[in-house]
Amino acid sequence: MVNWSNMDTLTAYNALDKVDKVDLISVMSGEDGVKRVKEMSVQMGGGLSYNYAAKEVDEKIIDALANLAKEAQLTEKYAALYNGEVINTGEKRLVLHQLTRGQLGNDVVADNVNKRDFYINEQNKIADFAKKVHSGEIANAAGEKFTTVVQIGIGGSDLGPRAMYLALENWAKKNNTFKMEAKFISNVDPDDAAAVLNSIDVAHSIFVLVSKSGTTLETLTNESFVKDALKKAGLDPSKHMIAVTSETSPLAKSADYLAAFFMDDYIGGRFSSTSSVGGAVLSLAFGPEVFADFLEGAAQEDALAKNEDIRNNPAMLDALIGVYERNVLGYPATAVLPYSQALSRFPAHLQQLDMESNGKSVNRFGEPINYKTGPVIFGEPGTNGQHSFYQLLHQGTDIVPLQFIGFKNNQLGTDVDIQGSTSQQKLCANVAAQIVAFACGKKDANANKNFAGARPSSIIIGNKLDPKALGALLAHFENKVMFQGFVWNINSFDQEGVQLGKVLAKKVLAHETDGALKIYSDLLNI
Amino acid sequence: MVNWSNMDTLTAYNALDKVDKVDLISVMSGEDGVKRVKEMSVQMGGGLSYNYAAKEVDEKIIDALANLAKEAQLTEKYAALYNGEVINTGEKRLVLHQLTRGQLGNDVVADNVNKRDFYINEQNKIADFAKKVHSGEIANAAGEKFTTVVQIGIGGSDLGPRAMYLALENWAKKNNTFKMEAKFISNVDPDDAAAVLNSIDVAHSIFVLVSKSGTTLETLTNESFVKDALKKAGLDPSKHMIAVTSETSPLAKSADYLAAFFMDDYIGGRFSSTSSVGGAVLSLAFGPEVFADFLEGAAQEDALAKNEDIRNNPAMLDALIGVYERNVLGYPATAVLPYSQALSRFPAHLQQLDMESNGKSVNRFGEPINYKTGPVIFGEPGTNGQHSFYQLLHQGTDIVPLQFIGFKNNQLGTDVDIQGSTSQQKLCANVAAQIVAFACGKKDANANKNFAGARPSSIIIGNKLDPKALGALLAHFENKVMFQGFVWNINSFDQEGVQLGKVLAKKVLAHETDGALKIYSDLLNI
Repeated sequence: MVNWSNMDTLTAYNALDKVDKVDLISVMSGEDGVKRVKEMSVQMGGGLSYNYAAKEVDEKIIDALANLAKEAQLTEKYAALYNGEVINTGEKRLVLHQLTRGQLGNDVVADNVNKRDFYINEQNKIADFAKKVHSGEIANAAGEKFTTVVQIGIGGSDLGPRAMYLALENWAKKNNTFKMEAKFISNVDPDDAAAVLNSIDVAHSIFVLVSKSGTTLETLTNESFVKDALKKAGLDPSKHMIAVTSETSPLAKSADYLAAFFMDDYIGGRFSSTSSVGGAVLSLAFGPEVFADFLEGAAQEDALAKNEDIRNNPAMLDALIGVYERNVLGYPATAVLPYSQALSRFPAHLQQLDMESNGKSVNRFGEPINYKTGPVIFGEPGTNGQHSFYQLLHQGTDIVPLQFIGFKNNQLGTDVDIQGSTSQQKLCANVAAQIVAFACGKKDANANKNFAGARPSSIIIGNKLDPKALGALLAHFENKVMFQGFVWNINSFDQEGVQLGKVLAKKVLAHETDGALKIYSDLLNI
Repeated sequence: MVNWSNMDTLTAYNALDKVDKVDLISVMSGEDGVKRVKEMSVQMGGGLSYNYAAKEVDEKIIDALANLAKEAQLTEKYAALYNGEVINTGEKRLVLHQLTRGQLGNDVVADNVNKRDFYINEQNKIADFAKKVHSGEIANAAGEKFTTVVQIGIGGSDLGPRAMYLALENWAKKNNTFKMEAKFISNVDPDDAAAVLNSIDVAHSIFVLVSKSGTTLETLTNESFVKDALKKAGLDPSKHMIAVTSETSPLAKSADYLAAFFMDDYIGGRFSSTSSVGGAVLSLAFGPEVFADFLEGAAQEDALAKNEDIRNNPAMLDALIGVYERNVLGYPATAVLPYSQALSRFPAHLQQLDMESNGKSVNRFGEPINYKTGPVIFGEPGTNGQHSFYQLLHQGTDIVPLQFIGFKNNQLGTDVDIQGSTSQQKLCANVAAQIVAFACGKKDANANKNFAGARPSSIIIGNKLDPKALGALLAHFENKVMFQGFVWNINSFDQEGVQLGKVLAKKVLAHETDGALKIYSDLLNI
């Protein structure tokens, strides 16, 4: 039986602040620094490793965080989750996204089915469908192969799948598994759909409508937009569209779609990249084998998250260090900095994953809490970010903890040697340099050229960004966010904060407003 | 003569905290709210307006901020800047980006030339070149027209021009001024250049190499990458490349380029979108007339920034409200939320503009300061963001001030009517709803569904995102950042914080490292 207690009631949490702080400049210098970088590293799934040498922690603090993990029963809570307890208490739902990629515990039966079987069955349906599209067995009315897949979805139906697509596009091209170009329509801004439609050959495009409920305003609006375009092109929309939705949604059995693939209420949008939501578009784009490898990487990482020893549990360790930075050290934001152009939209995905999950002010019982929860998350790929916002990270008045990600090799294999080094070496040299520059700083008599240092970071290192590495990377952050939610005793799996805006927007469109809202509506010509 | 004093030495600053705070929920409700939304609005350039009704200010606070503006001599400092004083004291440089779009004060002579004439001359050279490319007078070796322009640059040579290109791409297509597709190569990650090169027809592409110094690592590396690709395609690189650089750079008179267009040390990268840095790629993509309109919008906004009356100076007002939020109310971040897919990368540009300019801990004399400066800036287009990080904005434990941007009309004109409203109306309804939801909140007996409100925002409203509106929008934020830098008494125009990383990266590549840096280099296989 697990206890769901507020963080500030835990003995281990209250002990944390009493442990000596780490002087990062000192411990990262000289032989101490060598030792830390060599030793403070944990193996992750997908061949990745998590190195936390440049975080403001030492063995004593890790011990204290391990005590917190134990008292907060993180391992037990994770087990409760994957064994099918109602962890999403607000919406009274199970939380089963890990089951889309593995079986971590007991069989989970809900809605009278074994959920692992259910998810595998959907994956198999998608794989079968994708193969038929690739072979041309499923083709357009003229019998020609589809060449483009367009995902219509927003939020978790867009950010994760889009980030994953971009992450593997070049890898797939290099490895001859690239099957179809993917595009994404998300915003209700009509220029979004119109621009995507203008950029593709609709006659050879297949559209994936993604909406769990079948009622998402933006998605249904964009579906109509697309159907209009298909009709204007003399095409039958029902021959160009598939649906990814819940079995109970109005879309599930509609004749408007070539096929429907299912997800369910136990997978939140922001955790849905490994479900049918990511599965359909990624399997169409890269083939089901690539998607299967992606799931395998995630499954490896999920398995590691079971380790009770925090030093061998990268997600739990990362989560606890984040809590320490947020609640003990008081840092308000975190930057995610992948040194890989392929991960250009990965920070945007993490922004949703983290901020929507843990941007809460009440505990899981709906009671106000008295400590900070999720930080602001932002980021851009390096080296680009170095020429943008790193100035503030190095010399600004707030300390922003950093999460670097780097790979030894690039995806496409093409490179040039200039001044004795390749571009890939320059890329890696920069991330190594940044970690040390942030941690150690550099004294200068000119205060404007002085670097105070003591700015903490960690780095996830991989050999190459391939499907397994990407799956592990994704699952790592999902599990980190989950563990942090457990520590903060919040429900990371609902999002009540998005409701009020929806309600008021409907009122505006119905012209049922008064007060300030009516004047804003007038100003915007609604 | 202006006084450069630290903010915390100013009487008006110390008086700010004593002015009664505003209860945003109360003032934005009922008839008070109606009055605020109607009245708390300032005309901007380009047909835009800045509405600050939902900010935590009232007439008393605006009066106090006006006192601060006066005591900090913001108008005089702006005049000193545009009249050519050495405002960038760290690098001992003038700050002249406003001169690329207008003449606000006296003639500015530097390096023995009238700088306004110099910038206009470069614009004319670019316009002439672009027209010749469009007409085919300048063509590839086979005498065929160039169809694609590729900007090679990083930081300010990438983020601003890229954001501006994306902002006007659909507008130009709709208005028949679209001349050439533009692509951008920035990251030293070799996969960035390789992917762009794979996506274009190099034989019909013209490359714009942008580097003020002619020494930027990423840009020169990517130039070599591109030259290799051109040679492999049997093409002469010098017939496919132009340079945007300073007159003193090694690129300026090189035979490697079809033409060279100049900028100078008085325009920082992040302020360079209206210089040749943005001018070349945007004039090639959309025609010089569109670029001229963009400059006109910026010039209108620059002129408004001269108003001594803060209530008629949108940039100064926005800047002072930002200082109030940062230093009096203590908010650590600001989100930029354009309800326009075309502005998808505008927040990334502002992230550089703001964080690189004002992420400083020393004053303009190099002395440490004791107050917070620039906040973290992040954002994504709405409505997408609503389905991502708005949960934290509504119900998180930190208050994040918001900058909305919205337009009455979309760019492409295509739309669908569903359930009685168009997509554009839905888009606008959402931004209106969000402002009120954030400001007023909504009480609910279930704390998990409770919205505390009192979360401040402003909105910039335009008729349509066209070149003039975009120019005004850009200049607004440039001037806002400048005024905030003046208030904080920092130098917003240098970026010493980016140097240390560069130095250490060079050491890594030269294998001249020891300690932690050497181990990180080993881990990354450098």
